[in-house]
Amino acid sequence: MMSQKLRVTVWGENVHEHENPLVAKIYPDGMHCTIADAIAEEGNCEVRTATLQDPEHGLSATVLENTDVLVWWGHAAHGKVEDAIVERVQKRVWEGMGLIVLHSGHFSKIFRKLMGTTCDLKWRVSENERETLWVTRPGHPIVKGMDDHFVIPQEEMYGEYFDIPEPMETVLISSFAGGEVFRSGVTFTRGAGRIFYFRPGHEMYPTYHDRNVLKIIENGVRWAAPTWPAKGVSFGNRKMGWV
Amino acid sequence: MMSQKLRVTVWGENVHEHENPLVAKIYPDGMHCTIADAIAEEGNCEVRTATLQDPEHGLSATVLENTDVLVWWGHAAHGKVEDAIVERVQKRVWEGMGLIVLHSGHFSKIFRKLMGTTCDLKWRVSENERETLWVTRPGHPIVKGMDDHFVIPQEEMYGEYFDIPEPMETVLISSFAGGEVFRSGVTFTRGAGRIFYFRPGHEMYPTYHDRNVLKIIENGVRWAAPTWPAKGVSFGNRKMGWV
Amino acid sequence: MMSQKLRVTVWGENVHEHENPLVAKIYPDGMHCTIADAIAEEGNCEVRTATLQDPEHGLSATVLENTDVLVWWGHAAHGKVEDAIVERVQKRVWEGMGLIVLHSGHFSKIFRKLMGTTCDLKWRVSENERETLWVTRPGHPIVKGMDDHFVIPQEEMYGEYFDIPEPMETVLISSFAGGEVFRSGVTFTRGAGRIFYFRPGHEMYPTYHDRNVLKIIENGVRWAAPTWPAKGVSFGNRKMGWV
Amino acid sequence: MMSQKLRVTVWGENVHEHENPLVAKIYPDGMHCTIADAIAEEGNCEVRTATLQDPEHGLSATVLENTDVLVWWGHAAHGKVEDAIVERVQKRVWEGMGLIVLHSGHFSKIFRKLMGTTCDLKWRVSENERETLWVTRPGHPIVKGMDDHFVIPQEEMYGEYFDIPEPMETVLISSFAGGEVFRSGVTFTRGAGRIFYFRPGHEMYPTYHDRNVLKIIENGVRWAAPTWPAKGVSFGNRKMGWV
Repeated sequence: MMSQKLRVTVWGENVHEHENPLVAKIYPDGMHCTIADAIAEEGNCEVRTATLQDPEHGLSATVLENTDVLVWWGHAAHGKVEDAIVERVQKRVWEGMGLIVLHSGHFSKIFRKLMGTTCDLKWRVSENERETLWVTRPGHPIVKGMDDHFVIPQEEMYGEYFDIPEPMETVLISSFAGGEVFRSGVTFTRGAGRIFYFRPGHEMYPTYHDRNVLKIIENGVRWAAPTWPAKGVSFGNRKMGWV
Repeated sequence: MMSQKLRVTVWGENVHEHENPLVAKIYPDGMHCTIADAIAEEGNCEVRTATLQDPEHGLSATVLENTDVLVWWGHAAHGKVEDAIVERVQKRVWEGMGLIVLHSGHFSKIFRKLMGTTCDLKWRVSENERETLWVTRPGHPIVKGMDDHFVIPQEEMYGEYFDIPEPMETVLISSFAGGEVFRSGVTFTRGAGRIFYFRPGHEMYPTYHDRNVLKIIENGVRWAAPTWPAKGVSFGNRKMGWV
Repeated sequence: MMSQKLRVTVWGENVHEHENPLVAKIYPDGMHCTIADAIAEEGNCEVRTATLQDPEHGLSATVLENTDVLVWWGHAAHGKVEDAIVERVQKRVWEGMGLIVLHSGHFSKIFRKLMGTTCDLKWRVSENERETLWVTRPGHPIVKGMDDHFVIPQEEMYGEYFDIPEPMETVLISSFAGGEVFRSGVTFTRGAGRIFYFRPGHEMYPTYHDRNVLKIIENGVRWAAPTWPAKGVSFGNRKMGWV
Repeated sequence: MMSQKLRVTVWGENVHEHENPLVAKIYPDGMHCTIADAIAEEGNCEVRTATLQDPEHGLSATVLENTDVLVWWGHAAHGKVEDAIVERVQKRVWEGMGLIVLHSGHFSKIFRKLMGTTCDLKWRVSENERETLWVTRPGHPIVKGMDDHFVIPQEEMYGEYFDIPEPMETVLISSFAGGEVFRSGVTFTRGAGRIFYFRPGHEMYPTYHDRNVLKIIENGVRWAAPTWPAKGVSFGNRKMGWV
């Protein structure tokens, strides 16, 4: 039987938080916990966290079977995520699990495998780097309740070309103080699964304490939630006359 | 304040039902009422009907303002729908109202205006015209609960080329006894509004009594429902420094 | 028999050039002639011009039948373009004629009819409004030979939300001095016709003397060119067994 | 300096031709040679072939650097294609090389890596399995010169759900004698590269002697050809003020 509540797992690489005191100060329990708490506050969600350091990176078959939407933040240790776990996550996306990829997760194994591209981009960490995010799909569930734009006072710059396949929907586009632009909110589907990439979240800034950023993550989780049971996926040989 | 229930208006041309005894026998209260009853049975919807013969075709400004999703069936009298009403519906779609266009509604003024194409196709009414509909987006909310295909024993044939813009998603593709194929379930967005075209529904057959067909219409209504309030749509001149 | 050369018609509204001395100074023969000359210089094109003031706006049935790609600039007099001519152009796009819509042509009757949306946006004319255009589809024929970005020192600002359907491809995104962003190069198809909207070109600035801007228009013309004869578009009734 | 001629490499797995006398009879020199000859006949192409059995599968760095479009047929030995070579091909697609994937190539490592999905489907080899292919993008370069449909008298059935991402364009849809449908001609981009999957080509039937099938492969090669030099793809750190 299926839970009525949406079952969300927030995965955090959890490396910067232990190596950089500045990051630890902004996120004493890790970014994953800050994000998980915000999603949980919205209600009607069961939220758990998982990290790189957990056995099987916290993503056992049982955990994934009981996850409707997975949120992913990684940066310094993409290469340490085991291939077998990545393939397990990919298979689960194909079955219908939603996937929210945050910020430097653009270079994660799972995102690159699902996109089929390098997912590379331009970047800069600089003082006074203001990011302005513009809504390019008003009415989309992911920007529910948002104004036509919002500002993050301090963020890392990501600039085009962002090497992803043409998105299904481009929901947000950012400009930066240096004149660069970036497709900051983009959606895809792979198999029965919905994927939302959302740009903001450099570890050195308190981005995941920003009300607008959290609102979009929460909206994204709801948008990516599957319509279980996802029937109809069956392959292989068929005899003439079976229809 | 917004209604918690989804507010659905089912629009029927309501011409064949009065001119053709065979149609009247299959749909004694009109196709629109059969469809409306099925949607209402699913619960959590307030469903009303509107017809060509009503003042303002039943689509006054007030009705539209209080409609979350509009379902449209027309065939014999597309030309009798007043342009001012069509523009009113189009404007409401832009604001976020969902639109479900059924069968010969492909040639309605509203669908053609939203698509920007002729929306023309091939067709045939013939005995023993079996339609088989195949799911091409398993896991999509519109095919929730459906098997990988289903059969309508008797239907009108529609064949490609169907002159529509490339859909956002192709959810269902049909084959017919004569060997033709047709993109039978396709989605689009225009402004904040979601549009779902669904092929089946020739007036001479009991298609809108078919459990699978009704299930997809109900799913489509839920998929097309807006995320009110759709903020962020504001245009025009902006002074430097307003951001 | 078909011409080997690409047959291009550049349509100019030709109003500002006669009312504003500043515009007349930048474009003594009208913007349409400046653009047409640049396309012609590239070779292998037969280029003609047409204006609002010509009989049938210069877009007779014969002219359109002998046009492979139509380039459109309009602003002050969209409402004076006759509906019958607009429908003639639309029909020709459906048959395969390419269409390049420039700058304030976003509000032209023909573009709005093809899009099915309002095509509205934010805008500002301001001193020191620098536009930076970023390539978001490297390798696309429309940006052949371009670097990853280029700057127009002085331009009108256009800002999101730009109310168009989700493009087939987003080829260029602009940032402006005020922090706004805009999808400045976007592609669509309608029927057999390819459509390219390209943003730059405020009449008060020498934008159509800019080497990068002209290069993209020329590339766009080549990309939008049809693969005549566009066979296969045939609709209507078919008897069982015709396949 | 770039060759004026289009440089095409046709890759054949070349296994069935040596193990099954029936296949060898239909394609005495292998399917890859039959396809290569047809492309070469069209003129303005330099065509070479490569097979699984060649050193580096015939796809050395030099060969790929001098290939504009790669055509791929594989079936029995997908697993024997070395990962390093697959990654080399993928990288070259990202740079702009076109890729035409034929028939059972849907399960090749390269296609699955580029799609990010299982690329699974339903199938049947059965007598009297007629395939009818319908054009769903008239005017598209890939169907240049084709009628609105064509028939292959005997083919293997492939049926939906075909587990691919939503295509950029769906150019052809097939129906089969058993009532199944399949998206038989679909396009994608990854990086600067264009990808065309084309369904027909079971090794037991003379499909690659069929005039219509060959015409579409030739059209596809021209459509997928890159617009070298693909400039503008450059990633990594940028200093403030570089724009």
